[in-house]
Amino acid sequence: MVQPNQITLYTHHYAPYPHRVRIALEEAKAEYTRVDVDIVNKPAWYTEKVNPAGKVPAITFVGPPASPENPSPNAVKLTESLVIVEFIAELFPSSKLHPADLVKRARARLFITIVETAFFNGFKALFIDGASNAGILAALEALQARLAPAAEAEAEAVFAVGEWSIADVAVAPFLLRMRMMLEHEIGKYPMGEGRKTIEELETPKFARMKEYMEAVGSRPSVLATWNEAQVLDISLKNPAMKRD
Amino acid sequence: MVQPNQITLYTHHYAPYPHRVRIALEEAKAEYTRVDVDIVNKPAWYTEKVNPAGKVPAITFVGPPASPENPSPNAVKLTESLVIVEFIAELFPSSKLHPADLVKRARARLFITIVETAFFNGFKALFIDGASNAGILAALEALQARLAPAAEAEAEAVFAVGEWSIADVAVAPFLLRMRMMLEHEIGKYPMGEGRKTIEELETPKFARMKEYMEAVGSRPSVLATWNEAQVLDISLKNPAMKRD
Repeated sequence: MVQPNQITLYTHHYAPYPHRVRIALEEAKAEYTRVDVDIVNKPAWYTEKVNPAGKVPAITFVGPPASPENPSPNAVKLTESLVIVEFIAELFPSSKLHPADLVKRARARLFITIVETAFFNGFKALFIDGASNAGILAALEALQARLAPAAEAEAEAVFAVGEWSIADVAVAPFLLRMRMMLEHEIGKYPMGEGRKTIEELETPKFARMKEYMEAVGSRPSVLATWNEAQVLDISLKNPAMKRD
Repeated sequence: MVQPNQITLYTHHYAPYPHRVRIALEEAKAEYTRVDVDIVNKPAWYTEKVNPAGKVPAITFVGPPASPENPSPNAVKLTESLVIVEFIAELFPSSKLHPADLVKRARARLFITIVETAFFNGFKALFIDGASNAGILAALEALQARLAPAAEAEAEAVFAVGEWSIADVAVAPFLLRMRMMLEHEIGKYPMGEGRKTIEELETPKFARMKEYMEAVGSRPSVLATWNEAQVLDISLKNPAMKRD
């Protein structure tokens, strides 16, 4: 489709939230300028001129051409990954990020609600607080219960509501990082829990979730925006994930 | 517009979350069946046949005619107030709950993000935890900063993004309850903090917010769904709000 306006995305390749926006922009085949912001030592121009909260992602939209460090005061600035993903879905209807069926669209948003609550809490508990994997496994079970039934899903429709949607965009960055960190035993949980959690996810109980995670991981928009070696390198050095 | 399908709303007049859905349905001029669920002593049919999580709101949609206590297994069932509000906005485009301007729509969702985080936390801190009003006042300031400028707003466009939208639907039930509880000194905060907080909200610093709250409170869809005497009666008896 015709690109309606300039889009500049402020991101960081390590962070899962801006990763959602990159996946959505890839799905939309949007042209955009990507600007990596150092999330540890944030440059002053970022909080002054783009996002006072200092977080990524942010996007600027419309406005006259300008350097990313000095966006036009007239440019539209948006923050919050899910708000931006909804915006991209609406700005580029051809992306089909919003299912045409309104019930499916509502189911995609219900799936996202679980990602933002139970799954996020379980993720934090395991990797950052060093608690057990019970929370994240329960959340994965709850998400699995929401997945379109595998039997009904065609080869090209194995995603959360069948076809690819905002639901998959929201969870993909977290599933990729979860798998990577478990495989490399990264996180505050006791050493060995990573392997055990992966084994749990290989049992028949999680068959549909396994199929789903594999499908998400091999989606072209996800592959195009995921550099595992680079994220692994930063994760290994992240003090928030280091065991005492 | 033509009513596309049957809608049954499971609600409780005390609770702010289902109130969002009632306001949205009023705005949409939707025909719907309203079923009050006893949220303290939940009937077994509710968790078994409508919402296993036991929370309100929930809606059933489509499906053959059935009694509310025994909805068709084929009916679509949706939960989560904001998911349902987005669904109603999309199902009834004539409601204009979604601004046509996609940037305004994104700003409405950003406003809702603040309602769900800072404002909700400040609300809980003041009324339920008995902490100071600092959190809720800071959140109201943050929300005020997001309101469309009053100078630009026409008489009919004083709402969050100008015209009435999902943003106003999301915050209205909480603003009404906040004002009522402050006026009646209901909540765990020290007696007298209610009056002080109201006085703070009358200062010029909160002029735009005051204008906004008045406009929200006199919106016909809000008036039609708000029985203050009834909510007050329950609030006065709510143990979660009682001072020790």
